[in-house]
This record gives sequence, C-alpha cells and structure tokens, in this order.
Amino acid sequence: MLYSANDIQNMDQRYRANFINCLSGFKSANLLGTTSTSGQENLAIISSVFHVGANPPLLGMIMRPHTVPRDSLQNIKDTGVYTLSAVGTEFTEQAHQTSARYNDSEFAAVGLTPTYSATHQAPYVQEARLRIGLEVKQIEKIELNQTELVIGQIVEVYVDNSVVSIDGYIDLEQLQTSCVSGLDTYHKSSRINRYGYAKPDEPLAKIN
Amino acid sequence: MLYSANDIQNMDQRYRANFINCLSGFKSANLLGTTSTSGQENLAIISSVFHVGANPPLLGMIMRPHTVPRDSLQNIKDTGVYTLSAVGTEFTEQAHQTSARYNDSEFAAVGLTPTYSATHQAPYVQEARLRIGLEVKQIEKIELNQTELVIGQIVEVYVDNSVVSIDGYIDLEQLQTSCVSGLDTYHKSSRINRYGYAKPDEPLAKIN
Repeated sequence: MLYSANDIQNMDQRYRANFINCLSGFKSANLLGTTSTSGQENLAIISSVFHVGANPPLLGMIMRPHTVPRDSLQNIKDTGVYTLSAVGTEFTEQAHQTSARYNDSEFAAVGLTPTYSATHQAPYVQEARLRIGLEVKQIEKIELNQTELVIGQIVEVYVDNSVVSIDGYIDLEQLQTSCVSGLDTYHKSSRINRYGYAKPDEPLAKIN
Repeated sequence: MLYSANDIQNMDQRYRANFINCLSGFKSANLLGTTSTSGQENLAIISSVFHVGANPPLLGMIMRPHTVPRDSLQNIKDTGVYTLSAVGTEFTEQAHQTSARYNDSEFAAVGLTPTYSATHQAPYVQEARLRIGLEVKQIEKIELNQTELVIGQIVEVYVDNSVVSIDGYIDLEQLQTSCVSGLDTYHKSSRINRYGYAKPDEPLAKIN
C-alpha cells in the first residue's frame, strides 16, 4: 500500500508517532548518563544516537524538546559531558523503564548501577558491556521541528578487548547488545554476514 | 579495558574507522536511490539514516564528503528528491556491493530492480518491502568534520498494510529488514519484547 503525504498528515498523532518512528529501521539502544550541577544523576533511554565520524570520533543524537530527556540536555549543557551505555539484551526492561518521569535518579528507580571512571565526570551503567564517555562539541536547534542536535566527541571507551577484532571491529553480538524498532520494541540480533571492501567486477568477499 | 582519547587517536586509520563505527550500536540498513539531472540512476548503501521527528515526518542522514555516496549527494542537491529502501535480509550482499565505485547504474551492476511510483521522481528498489520517498529540506555542513547533514521530509511510504499494527507500529521483523554494525556486517533480528508507556511505580507492560 502507498501512503501519501496526506495519509500521513491525517494520521492520529500517536499512530503517526509509531508509524514514522519505525521507518528509519532498526536503531541503537543506549542509556544516556548525565549529572546535574547539584550532583543528581540522570539516566535516559535514547534510540537516536548515530555515527558522525571516526576522526575525530564523533557521535550525534537528536533530543526532542518536550520529552523526558530534557533533563539530560540541560545537564549536558551545564556540565559539558555525558555517557552512552549500550543496552544489553538482558536489561531492556530496566532500560525502557528509565523513560518514566521520575523525580529522583533513574538508576535506583529501575535497578541499574551507576559507575564512574577515574577520568570522566558523568555516570556509566555498570551492567553495560560497552560504555562511551563523551564531551559535547555542538548543540544546535533544527529549525524544521525545534529538536536539538547534540554532537559529542568520544573521549573514552570501556569494552572488553576480547570482543575487538584484529581490525578494530567490535562484535556487538558477542556483547549481547540490543537494538530498537519504533518507540518501544527491543530486539536481539544474529549475524547474516560480514563483507569485504566492495569492488566492481569482483565477487564480494565474506569475512569470518 | 578502558581506551583513552589518546589510545583512539593513536589507532591506525582503518582500525579506528572499524572501532568507532561500531560504537553507536546497531544501525539501519537502507539503499539511497537518486537520479542525476541527465537521468542516470544511482543506488548507495547507507547506514546513517536516523529519525528526526514524526510531525512533520523527517529523516536525517550523514554523508561523508570523500566516500562513494557523493554522487548521491549531488543528485539530491540537483533534483531535490531521493528514496530510501529498507535492505531485506536476503539481499544484504547486493546492497553492500553498491558501495563499489561503479561508473554506471548500481542497480544493474548488483542485480537490484529500479521501480517508480506515479508520484515521486527518484527510483525505489523493487525488492525492498519498505520504501520511503523524500524531499530534501535542509543540507548543512557539520564544521567539526566537514560531513554533510541531510534532512528530508517523507512524502510517501510503500509498505504492505498487513505489517502495520492497529496503533501504527510497523513490524520490521515480519518485513525481514536487516540491520548493520560497523562498516560491513549485516544482521537479522528477533524480538525480545515490546513495552508499554513507562510510568513511575508501575510495572512495565508488555505488548504482544
């Protein structure tokens, strides 16, 4: 079926939110860790993290102005730092529960454990097997819909080096990292194939 | 193991590219379809598509200046329109092969079929079970690394309505949509759970 721009415009707001949020495909599931200037820890599920570049190492994310992570955005503006902890397949429920509107720390409320490195000021999720520390580099309002684009530079990464291949590839599957579709659905993955560098008129190599 | 900013800076370039590209987690696998002003069709695998907002319905993507999709970016600038076709789990190899530097259309070179709707000027992949037509709304250089942020508005969506739930959720798994980790690894998914709207002091509901 072909849905036109009019069909989309005429959808009920919640229906459209589900429908459009599915269109970009599978998304990463991360927990965004921050601290307020008064020392209050904050943890928020976020599925909008995307790769911006490897050198310098940059990640972007989209923050909606009227959703729960607004506290996170204020904390990032105030402190300049944040963390991303990959959501493992065994704690998707606790991760999703961070989207409830708590007054106190989401860590204690949902049963996840804050942990710190000696070199970064924002809290990580101890249960996460991949943790990224970032410093904010750019915050910009997207005028088309008043969301905020946040770009940060990766300043440290915690991951067991047994899952890092000789060429730098990190096996997210071995880490049991989950992914998200739409607003609320979590998935685990299984590998189809890893492919080599593609060249015209050569069959694509498979890497194992 | 904790990788410091220095450790990352000192990585070999290809190693760092693999390592950093894995950090954001699982990514969507889409084929970007465009046409040049002279009518040449172009198809490029892209894993940087992300949700920007549902109303208006907006998708973003990051285009690197010196990689293959530069033809795609020029086509988008010239024609104002493009398509995204979700990569099915059975054609990940053809999809990845579009990243080779072809002089002619990638459609014929990799064995995928261009198809058009009556209402959009850019080509879709007929083999894809989810296809999105977009009009470009914003192109902006990210000064931090000279990549280009492209934001488009969704103007039509082709998907079988049997996979669209009563609340608008699209079952990407039933569509057998693939996802990507790093630069070159494709995965299929299996659902862990769909969760309800989270509230403090209430157990999280599961939706089936």
